[in-house]
Amino acid sequence: MLYIVGLGLGDERDITIRGLDCVRKCAKVYIEAYTSLLSFGLAANGLSKLEELYGKEIIVADREMVEEKADRMLDEALDSDVAFLVVGDPFGATTHTDIVVRARQMGVNVKVVHNASVMNAIGACGLQLYRYGETVSIPFFTETWRPDSFYVKIKNNKQFGLHTLCLLDIRVKEPTFESLCRGKKVYEPPKFMTINTAIEQLLDVAADRGESVCNEDTLCVGIARLGSDSQKIVADTMRNLRGVDFGDPLHCLVIVGETHDMENQMLDFYGNKQG
Amino acid sequence: MLYIVGLGLGDERDITIRGLDCVRKCAKVYIEAYTSLLSFGLAANGLSKLEELYGKEIIVADREMVEEKADRMLDEALDSDVAFLVVGDPFGATTHTDIVVRARQMGVNVKVVHNASVMNAIGACGLQLYRYGETVSIPFFTETWRPDSFYVKIKNNKQFGLHTLCLLDIRVKEPTFESLCRGKKVYEPPKFMTINTAIEQLLDVAADRGESVCNEDTLCVGIARLGSDSQKIVADTMRNLRGVDFGDPLHCLVIVGETHDMENQMLDFYGNKQG
Repeated sequence: MLYIVGLGLGDERDITIRGLDCVRKCAKVYIEAYTSLLSFGLAANGLSKLEELYGKEIIVADREMVEEKADRMLDEALDSDVAFLVVGDPFGATTHTDIVVRARQMGVNVKVVHNASVMNAIGACGLQLYRYGETVSIPFFTETWRPDSFYVKIKNNKQFGLHTLCLLDIRVKEPTFESLCRGKKVYEPPKFMTINTAIEQLLDVAADRGESVCNEDTLCVGIARLGSDSQKIVADTMRNLRGVDFGDPLHCLVIVGETHDMENQMLDFYGNKQG
Repeated sequence: MLYIVGLGLGDERDITIRGLDCVRKCAKVYIEAYTSLLSFGLAANGLSKLEELYGKEIIVADREMVEEKADRMLDEALDSDVAFLVVGDPFGATTHTDIVVRARQMGVNVKVVHNASVMNAIGACGLQLYRYGETVSIPFFTETWRPDSFYVKIKNNKQFGLHTLCLLDIRVKEPTFESLCRGKKVYEPPKFMTINTAIEQLLDVAADRGESVCNEDTLCVGIARLGSDSQKIVADTMRNLRGVDFGDPLHCLVIVGETHDMENQMLDFYGNKQG
């Protein structure tokens, strides 16, 4: 049996009792390292905290392993209990759905233990979840690569008065361009997009396209470290949010659509007190 | 301090360690009874299971209390630790956001403990969360009341190739019409919309409006008891799903938009094996 266990958003104490029971009975425990683990209080001694809580050794499955070598983990799960721990909810990332598909093709039984993910915990900012349209991802622009399909989606959502959750780029264990050329992988340091960068890029695209889907007066909510003790939420215009220091990753951004009374009251609580 | 603690979707074991720690240190523990608690394995002896796990007496806060008498709970939270337990995630329901707003207005500190909700656990059906449009609610039709605003939203989502999550009506502790006339409340038995009824209503609206946003060939996924051990997921056309017995509540329904390869593979796993 393969147990895919969501760890939630904060730290080691956000696992569920059901999840903890699964982990404790497994012969082997893997944890995904590449999507957002560095933000999960695991930078320093987080992994040993998890190991202490679970009473188990944990094998870190980095990006290469999850994408290229998952079959070994699935092989083990054919005749023993294996846990695969993921930050947030198991179905938050496409990669994890892929593992479910491969497991079923191999005849491995799969059980999923759900947990909070940014997709529902974003409700914390006060905007009602059923008033969100399509979620978008904002990638780091480079000098030669400036995809802006997210902008059209924001425009479509706005047309119906809907809010847009923007997930911001995470780059962990990306091979450097030079190392790819030489055939030996050397990795870039991890890089997390800040709310400030996301807003700069959004305003750049708006200027390029000459459409005012977003402008400096657009109301947004910046959310850092959602679900953790140090969570920071600030609601303000793009102009003002651009200068706010949100601190450590992960960051995400909501572009506000039409709001109801209660939503406005919640946004008031998160109004920018610095300006 | 008021701790609003999400219980997740399955049973008492879906609380997080963080949530359990909060509950155990609180002087008083309330649980919301009216949105979906009857589906939470709490029909029979569920409440005593929770009390046993927490080592605390739990006060059931029914619909009237949450909507009319929440101030008492908030008063207590001004100078002691109070837990308010909710099924799913604290921000899944508008009512809970309202409590946060009232708490802040009264100067009560609030901490939220997140958990899985239908809004993210729906990923279990294999359709990627970032490919969903606006979520809709489908209410029970009566002879004189047939609102169909959900239909327009499904149409808008389809236009962009997006999936639609349909939340199905729950009626718990609704006063009977006769009792309202007499001024003394007598309640209707609880009523949960099935996937079958939702599909009937959707096809009725489609016929009324003469628009083929949904028809008997529309691909859907029916999900019952999401996140619990008895979870049932079936993907098929409306014609075929209409006759499937999904069993006990809660049910929800996804209307499938454009799909990618991996989504198709997941839907294949959930294909209707009865037909």
